[in-house]
This record gives sequence, C-alpha cells and structure tokens, in this order.
Amino acid sequence: MKKVAVVMGSTSDLPVMQDAVDILKEFGIEVDVDIVSAHRTPEKMFDFGQNAHLRNYAVIIAGAGGAAHLPGMLASLTPLPVIGVPVKSSNSIDGWDSVLSILQMPGGVPVATVALNGAKNAGILAAQILGSSDAGVLEKISQYKQGLKNKVIEGAKQVSKKG
Amino acid sequence: MKKVAVVMGSTSDLPVMQDAVDILKEFGIEVDVDIVSAHRTPEKMFDFGQNAHLRNYAVIIAGAGGAAHLPGMLASLTPLPVIGVPVKSSNSIDGWDSVLSILQMPGGVPVATVALNGAKNAGILAAQILGSSDAGVLEKISQYKQGLKNKVIEGAKQVSKKG
Amino acid sequence: MKKVAVVMGSTSDLPVMQDAVDILKEFGIEVDVDIVSAHRTPEKMFDFGQNAHLRNYAVIIAGAGGAAHLPGMLASLTPLPVIGVPVKSSNSIDGWDSVLSILQMPGGVPVATVALNGAKNAGILAAQILGSSDAGVLEKISQYKQGLKNKVIEGAKQVSKKG
Amino acid sequence: MKKVAVVMGSTSDLPVMQDAVDILKEFGIEVDVDIVSAHRTPEKMFDFGQNAHLRNYAVIIAGAGGAAHLPGMLASLTPLPVIGVPVKSSNSIDGWDSVLSILQMPGGVPVATVALNGAKNAGILAAQILGSSDAGVLEKISQYKQGLKNKVIEGAKQVSKKG
Amino acid sequence: MKKVAVVMGSTSDLPVMQDAVDILKEFGIEVDVDIVSAHRTPEKMFDFGQNAHLRNYAVIIAGAGGAAHLPGMLASLTPLPVIGVPVKSSNSIDGWDSVLSILQMPGGVPVATVALNGAKNAGILAAQILGSSDAGVLEKISQYKQGLKNKVIEGAKQVSKKG
Amino acid sequence: MKKVAVVMGSTSDLPVMQDAVDILKEFGIEVDVDIVSAHRTPEKMFDFGQNAHLRNYAVIIAGAGGAAHLPGMLASLTPLPVIGVPVKSSNSIDGWDSVLSILQMPGGVPVATVALNGAKNAGILAAQILGSSDAGVLEKISQYKQGLKNKVIEGAKQVSKKG
Amino acid sequence: MKKVAVVMGSTSDLPVMQDAVDILKEFGIEVDVDIVSAHRTPEKMFDFGQNAHLRNYAVIIAGAGGAAHLPGMLASLTPLPVIGVPVKSSNSIDGWDSVLSILQMPGGVPVATVALNGAKNAGILAAQILGSSDAGVLEKISQYKQGLKNKVIEGAKQVSKKG
Amino acid sequence: MKKVAVVMGSTSDLPVMQDAVDILKEFGIEVDVDIVSAHRTPEKMFDFGQNAHLRNYAVIIAGAGGAAHLPGMLASLTPLPVIGVPVKSSNSIDGWDSVLSILQMPGGVPVATVALNGAKNAGILAAQILGSSDAGVLEKISQYKQGLKNKVIEGAKQVSKKG
Repeated sequence: MKKVAVVMGSTSDLPVMQDAVDILKEFGIEVDVDIVSAHRTPEKMFDFGQNAHLRNYAVIIAGAGGAAHLPGMLASLTPLPVIGVPVKSSNSIDGWDSVLSILQMPGGVPVATVALNGAKNAGILAAQILGSSDAGVLEKISQYKQGLKNKVIEGAKQVSKKG
Repeated sequence: MKKVAVVMGSTSDLPVMQDAVDILKEFGIEVDVDIVSAHRTPEKMFDFGQNAHLRNYAVIIAGAGGAAHLPGMLASLTPLPVIGVPVKSSNSIDGWDSVLSILQMPGGVPVATVALNGAKNAGILAAQILGSSDAGVLEKISQYKQGLKNKVIEGAKQVSKKG
Repeated sequence: MKKVAVVMGSTSDLPVMQDAVDILKEFGIEVDVDIVSAHRTPEKMFDFGQNAHLRNYAVIIAGAGGAAHLPGMLASLTPLPVIGVPVKSSNSIDGWDSVLSILQMPGGVPVATVALNGAKNAGILAAQILGSSDAGVLEKISQYKQGLKNKVIEGAKQVSKKG
Repeated sequence: MKKVAVVMGSTSDLPVMQDAVDILKEFGIEVDVDIVSAHRTPEKMFDFGQNAHLRNYAVIIAGAGGAAHLPGMLASLTPLPVIGVPVKSSNSIDGWDSVLSILQMPGGVPVATVALNGAKNAGILAAQILGSSDAGVLEKISQYKQGLKNKVIEGAKQVSKKG
Repeated sequence: MKKVAVVMGSTSDLPVMQDAVDILKEFGIEVDVDIVSAHRTPEKMFDFGQNAHLRNYAVIIAGAGGAAHLPGMLASLTPLPVIGVPVKSSNSIDGWDSVLSILQMPGGVPVATVALNGAKNAGILAAQILGSSDAGVLEKISQYKQGLKNKVIEGAKQVSKKG
Repeated sequence: MKKVAVVMGSTSDLPVMQDAVDILKEFGIEVDVDIVSAHRTPEKMFDFGQNAHLRNYAVIIAGAGGAAHLPGMLASLTPLPVIGVPVKSSNSIDGWDSVLSILQMPGGVPVATVALNGAKNAGILAAQILGSSDAGVLEKISQYKQGLKNKVIEGAKQVSKKG
Repeated sequence: MKKVAVVMGSTSDLPVMQDAVDILKEFGIEVDVDIVSAHRTPEKMFDFGQNAHLRNYAVIIAGAGGAAHLPGMLASLTPLPVIGVPVKSSNSIDGWDSVLSILQMPGGVPVATVALNGAKNAGILAAQILGSSDAGVLEKISQYKQGLKNKVIEGAKQVSKKG
Repeated sequence: MKKVAVVMGSTSDLPVMQDAVDILKEFGIEVDVDIVSAHRTPEKMFDFGQNAHLRNYAVIIAGAGGAAHLPGMLASLTPLPVIGVPVKSSNSIDGWDSVLSILQMPGGVPVATVALNGAKNAGILAAQILGSSDAGVLEKISQYKQGLKNKVIEGAKQVSKKG
C-alpha cells in the first residue's frame, strides 16, 4: 500500500500535526513526517512537491499557519491530492489567515482543506482516500466510525443516569 | 473504474456545481448528478449516504449554501471521502456561512472543503483521489496541469507584446 | 403538560447546556436530556427527530459547536419548533461557525437561534412557547421577568450608594 | 386560535417581511401587520409590547435592520415568544449588524432569531409554536414539509433527465 | 453647569464604565451613575430617557454589551446627545455585537459611539460637549491634552536614553 | 450661535456628507464645508485642527473612507468635540476599514463615531451638542423627533389599510 | 538606474496592476511586466524569484487574488524587497483572502503589502524605495505629493464656491 | 550608509517594536528609536515626518495599534518609504483595527504594511530597501535567508529522528 506524507512549515506546528500521524498509524497506514517550509526552504519544497508521486505517496497532508502557502504550493507541484491543515499559529489572526490562504485556491489547483487545527481529520481523510480503492482500509474506516458512535452512546447513558 | 457522485441541495446550485461535472467528464470519469437536500429530503440523503460505497462510487462531491449541512451529513453516513463545495447562494452572508458550516467539522468526520463556488476544483480533487490509485488518471492530471501552465505562458507572451 | 427535550452533540457541551435544563426545571417544566450527535450517531438523530412529536415533546432544544448541524437536521425531521444553541466549543473559530451553521437555515426549515452559549435563553424561550398556550406558564414567565427587574433595581441602589 | 403579530421598524422592511405574512396565511393563521419603530415610535412600541399578550397574540414576529433593537425591546416587554428577523437594510454592513443586534440578547430575554432576511422561516416558526399545542396546525406543518420534499424530488428528476 | 449621566445595563459593566466617571470628576464635572437595563428594566429606561433633559443633564453616557440596546433606546427617547460605550462583556462575540448594535443606528437617531471599552473617551467627549459652550471646560480639555503630550515626551526621553 | 464645520477627505465624499449639511441647515445652524485631506493636505489639516476653536466652531464633523485618519487627527489637534463619519468609499473593504480606523481611537482622544455613511446622524448629533446648551435648538430637535414619529405612524396606517 | 518588475498571477489581474506600471512610467522608472503564476507556473516563478536580483531589478511588485501565494513565494526566493498587491479577484471572498494571504507572512520573509487593489500605491512605494538612494527620484516623489495637494486645494475651492 | 528610524505611538508598543531594532542591528544598520504619537504629540509627528528625509534616514518604520494613524500620517508628510507595523495593543479588536487603519491607505500615499506584530519583518524589509542599492546589505540578507533555511533543515532532522 502507498504511504502518506505529513509535512508542515515549522517544528512549532508538530503538536497540532501529530494528530494526523497518530490516527494514520492507528489505521495501519505508513506515514513519513518532514518539516518543509514554503518560505524558508523553497527549494526543498519544490523538490518534495515535484517528486512526491514518484516516492510511493498516495496523498500529502500539509499543515501551516498565518499566510499558509505550503499546502497550495505543493498542490501546484504534484498531481497527488493535497490535504491542507490550517494551523492557528502564534502569528495568526484568530486562524482566519491560515484558513483563507489554504482554502481559497484558484481554479485548477485544489487543496482539500479541513477545519482549523483539524489534523486528525486530515489523517482520516487521507485514510478515506486510500480506502476509496482499498476495501480493507474502507472497512477500518467503517469500524472507526462505529467506535465513535459507541462512545457517544456510552456518554449518553452517563448523562441520562445523572439527569 | 469507480464513479463520482455530484450532489447538491437545490437545483439553484446547479450552475455552480456543473463545473465539477464538466471537468470530471473531461478527465473521462463517470459522474452521476442528483439533488439531495439535507433539510428537505433527509430520508433520501440518509439512503444516499449509507449506500454510496455500495453503488460503485469512490468519492462524493456535495455542494450547498447558507447553513450547508449536506456535505457534513453525508460524511457522517459514508466511509467514502466527501468533498464539500461551499456555494454562495442567495441566502448566504457573503459565503461565510457556507464556508464555515462545511469546513469546521468535528474530529472524526472530515469534509474535504474547496474554495467558495470552487466546484471545478472539487472535480479535479475527485480525479486526484481516483488518480492516487490509478496511474492513467494521474497522468491525465499531470497533462491537465501542463495545459494550465501553457495557457499562462501564452498569456504572458501577449502581455509582454503589449508592454 | 408537554415536555421539552434538551439534546446536544457531545458531553462536552453539557456545562453550557445545563443552563437550559436548570431554568426549565425552575419553571416547573419537565425536561429530558440526551446526547445526540449529528455526525457520530446519525441514526439516533434520525430516530429522535422523526419521533419527537410522538413522544410528548412540545419543543426541542439542540446545542452544538463548530459546523453545528444538529439543530438544523432535527428541524428538517420534526414538525416541532427547534431552538438552536450555538456552543463556543474548543474547535470553533470564536463561535462564528457555530452561530452561522445554526442560524442561516434555508427557507422552509427554521431554527429558532439564541445567542452564543445562550442555553439559559433557550430554556426561557421553550417556556415561552409552552406559555403561549398555557396561562400558568405565561404567568411564571411574567414573574421571572419581574424578578430580573427587581435584581437590577437592587443593584442600582448599591451603585448609587457607592457613587 | 390565537393570532400572530408581524411588526417591523419601517415600511421599507415590508418587501422582506411580507414572506412571513404570506406563509402564515397559507397555514390558515390570522396575522396582524404593523409598523412599530423602536427608535422613532418608542411609545407605540412600549404599548405594543406591554399589551401583546392581552390582545390574543401567541407570538410576535419582529423584523428590523442595522442596529436592530425592535425584536429585543419587544422581548423585554412581553412574556410572549418573540421571533426576530434580521433585515439586510440599505444602512446595514452586509447584514452583520442586523444579525448580531438581534441574536446576542443577554441572559433572561431571548429572541428566537432566524436567518438574514428569513421572514418566511419566521412565519413557519410561528406556525410551529402554535402547532406545539394544536394538532391541526402541526399536521399542516407536516404536510408543508412533505410538499418541500416533493418539490425537491421533482427537481431531482429534471436534473437526472438532463444529466 | 449641567451634569452628565453615566448609565449602564448591568453592575458587571461598572469596572469598565468607572473610567468615564473618574475622568469627568477630574474635569470637575458633576456625574450621576445609575444601572438602567433596556431589557430588564424597560420602564425605568423609558422614564430615564424621557426625562433626562428635564433633570439638568447635558449629556448621557450609556454603556452596554452584546446586543446592546441601551444607548440607542435612550437616544430614541431624549433630545440630548447620547454617547454609547460598547462593552466587551462576557456574552459578547469579541465585542463585535456590542460595537455594531450601538454604532449602526438608523437615520434620525444618532448615538455618538466610542471605542470598545472606551469609557474614558466617553467621559472626555462629554466634557468636550460641555466645553463647546463653556470656555472654562474647554480650557481644561486643552490642559488635559497638554498633559498627554508631556507624558509621551517624557516616555520618549526614557526610550532614547535606553536606545 | 456657534457654527458647525463639515470637512471631508475628498470631493468624492461629498454626496454622502451633504446629508450632514442639509439637516444642519434644516435646524437653522450655520455650516461651513471644506475639503481637508489628512494624507494629501496635512498642513491644511493641521492648521484647521489647531484653530477650529478660535473660528467660532462648536463642533467638527469629519468624514473619510478606507484608512480614515481625518476625524482622529482633527480630534488630536482640537479641544472641540469631533464627530466622525465612516464613508464606504470605493477603496474600502465593505466599510470595515472606515469604521474601525475612526472608532477605535486610543484613550485620551475620542471621536464621536456614527454609522457607516451616517452623515445625516452626524448633523443631528452636532445639533444635539449645540442643543445641550441652547434651549431653542433642543426644542427643534424634539420637534424633529416628533416629525419622525408622525411619519412612521402615517406609514403604519398605509400598511394596515393594505393588510 | 535599476528597474522594477511588475508581475501578477493571471492576465485577469492586469486591469488592476496596470496602475502600478502607469505611475512608475510617470516617474520615469523602467518597468518590466510579466505573468507569473505561483500555482500554474511554479517553475517560472522559481526561476524569476531566484534571479530577479541578477536582472537589474531593485524591487518586485507582485499582485494576486484569493489564496494569493505569488508575493510571499517570491519574497522567499529573492533578497530584494517585494511589494504585494492584494487583488479583489472574482474568486475572492470580498478581498479578505487576498489581503490575509499576502500580509500575514511569517517572521523572516516580509512582503510590503498595500491596500486591496492598491496597485498605484505599489508603484509609488517602489519609486520611494528607489528614491531612498536616489535624490532625483526622491525629488519627483516630493513633486508628486505637491501635485496631490494642489488638486485637493483646487477641489476645495469648487466645494466652497458651491456651498 | 543611511539610517533607519523606528518610531511608535506609545512606550507600550516597545516590546513588539524592539524586534525591528534588534534585526536591523544584526544587519549592521544604524537605527534611531523614538516615541511619536499621532494623537498625543501631533506637532512632534509633523516635525518628524517633514524632516525625516533631511536627517539621513532612508526608511521609517512606524508601529501603532487600534485606530493606528501614525504610519499613514508619516507617509503623508515624507517622501521616504514608510513601513507600518500593526500592533495588537490592549485596546485593539483582535488586531483588525490596527491592520485595516494602516493597510487601507488611499491612492497616492502608500504604507508598506507587514503582518500583525510583525516588527521583525519590518526590520528585514527596511534592510532589503537599503540592500536594493547596496550590494553589501543585499549579501547580508541572502546570508540571513540561508541561515533560516539551515535552521529549518536542522529542525527537520530532529523530527525525522523522532518519527
């Protein structure tokens, strides 16, 4: 099975982005993690984007904050699907800059954007993309969703007991 | 090859959502189009979401405006990846409601959100998802991106001639 | 007298939503509390929405945060009035997503939206709805408003003493 | 059966607010329409708010734009439920002022807020409030929702024919 | 000389509004402070607004948060100038609701709005209004401004010493 | 009686600002109109601000759009009250820049801000400031408010005739 | 004297960006114009950014709309100052995305951002940068500012004649 | 070589603005620091702006918060390039007022705006402006950028070791 790349603009994004790594490992999907800064290591980003589809990746997850250009620039360089995670970094205006500079890509170059700090959902979405052509992964996602359901139902019992 | 479903909350969303259909057909990908309203046909939405992975779909593209619940509700019902298109409908506050009610999904249930009215990008993203496990589609995407490049370079020549 | 249902998407919404329960009990109105997640327990939500008017409820109060679909989806499933409480949850962008994804419902399917984290007002509104056909409840609301007035007037005395 | 009052701050709000009147008449509910300006006729507003529950009204629908104080002030004066319609008037900043000055009421004094320019939904919500204690009205709402559903399904057929 | 009235919707606004009182006293202007809630004591507000110009007030300063109706409603009831202070109260969405529901008054009924939590400026503005017809107060304002200037110049010296 | 100065940053602001002039003339108050640009004629602005209180003005009304510095800079230069009119000029982002750069003045230097494009209210506010020490003007304002009231009541009659 | 490069993401940005070219020519500064798309011609952008300081440019002006990555990416590639022009393109949410994705650059990689659609100011700023080391250009800017002043004073005369 | 002036509206802005001073010193560029308040010391600001180009400055960096008029007013007074730093001061609404009142300057008077609290980037931009005509400074900037790159690559190694 192909792998998922999880990249981010700065080591300070790692506490948020780790959620993507963890959930992918939970699904048994191989992940590579790297720091790739659009603004400080543009050459590395270029090399990464142009070659990702040759390195056995199926999907790229890219997280960045503020004027977040990494997801969109990778999307311009690779034919692979790119999932963007807007990070509410310390230099962000309440996350709006991160969200808009990832989401509002021009026609021709999509980024699959998830919620602010939504790295876990980025991981699940990457698994769903793999699952769209892999029945085993699809089944794991169905089970994961069943697990979410069970947890809510368990919580509901606690609430009604208290009520 | 699996198909892509393009659904939307109202026939009034069709002028925006047609872009997704057109680009998918350009990539030679089979598309089904349907009107599925979260708020007016919840049972149809339920049936659609619960069975989409059994009907040979690889991806669902869902467009809606205002308090746009269709993409997120389908994502809650299917293990397939769901791409959400925020539509700037007539009852929307400049598109902010459409964007936020699709993008800001809770942990566990991602929607791959594209730009406001970005149905073309939703189509390309769906193709990329298929392409992540299909070398033929991946190649078509690389060619499409080459076409975008050529058009810009052609436009640049016109500008420098005028300059 | 009919009952009021107070439901919410997650146990983490309970500290906010408890205000609705408390004020309803203060008015002597029977309340049922449950956790119903649009995104993690869609089947439970469906069942709840479709049958609420058969279970002796007069009103449903639904609270949720982020891309908050619970109030609107219940409104699509029930003929009863639904009061929506936008919750400023941890994954919300300053509450804007919660507010807009509850408030901006399309024509045909209203949600009676109250202020961000305004669960107490949701409870009072539910009481007012019962009171619109029940003179006893209406009288209690008039008394409650008199109590608010008295408290302000008492506070005003303290301020002018200090002044 | 009790009546519904539809009031608004200015005759210029009438084109928006007429939707509330029309849908209520469609449900066979009696409606009174009046212009009551919080800022230009405060005495009339006071009288209206203090006596509405004595004049056989079950619900008040109030529409206003900009710094929209009418719905909240009526809510402070009456024990009846008040539905607020934020109107995107000519002096409004894209509707945000209308929405926030109606929605964000303090604890103790709720306004049931509907979408920007959502007067039709205000009418439906008023009918639902009457319906919460009147099985005949409740049935009409169920039928109305069935009608919405049928229209979507009809539209869906047209789209799939074209597709 | 006429007096200034400083009123606010809740005792919880007092820590913010005290700045207006303090600066007015610094200018030697007599101030009355009161709690007047538009939503909880509408009758008191009505009486206050209708009679303020008969009680030797020249200006009213009114502070409120969230859906802040007090300044605008007083402005509708009095011929006197009303200064509105948007308070960033606990139930406010980052202050936007307080600002917009005070600032965006309809044509005919102005509120002189100052910055969010800007009670000190409200006091200075009230003094300026008195000063526009009272040379003694005008002179005090000129001296106050000179004091501000001196403090900045003193601060600048400290900075350049450090530099 | 003292005069009111109405100044604005550009002749393109005149269609909006004329409302202030018209209403002041209606109240029988003398008005001077001038173009004073903070950014293009800073020396003229300086001279105007420093001498306004010596030229028989009681109040300055200043309108500007975008990064609107004129009202605040005049307020820094004069001891007189300054009323700021945020103008939704062609280079403004929906008026937000105009509003915030006039409203959010630092402690010590207030600007009495009115609604976006609210020049008429600026004029009325200026009249109210004159009226706070002039019983004749105050009476005219009371009459003006009575006129607003009558017009609404007349409009209400038309609506109820139609209803 | 060195030249200024004016680049933009799309030929559709040219009507806005032409203002930069025109004002620079008015100042007698040589300008090169090109279309360089971050997302569609990333290789051209890379080459342009890495070599701009070798091609006799002193400043780069870059305009783009939506998720506007061109100015920031060029800033990451060149040691030259980069001026960013947020363009309110057809796919932009009222310009907010364009502004934030250009302005909010991370520490280390500045973009000198001007107002939305502010291409004329970008040209003037480029001239000022050249002027900071060229007394002749500095003098031209002083003259230009004098011209702005004269035009306002002329306009002011017209207004006072009419008044 | 010419110097850079770093000015700010208040000593409370110094903790933010010090970053500009530090980075400029790191580049070996001479800096003068001063407190210049548009609103409290307008005369000092006027003198500073009108004479900056005579005092051997090449660039002015100006920081301010809230209704931040200092950068724009200096830009109106000097032919030199002015860099504006929006400061998220205590009286600011999440920084939006600071950003918009600096960025949205009218045609003719640019301010080179950097990110909210982006004083370090203001310093780098000032260095780049000096560097556009000074090969030594340009080389230092290239080295600085190389240093940023090395730090990211070092951080990336740590992450992949952990991974």
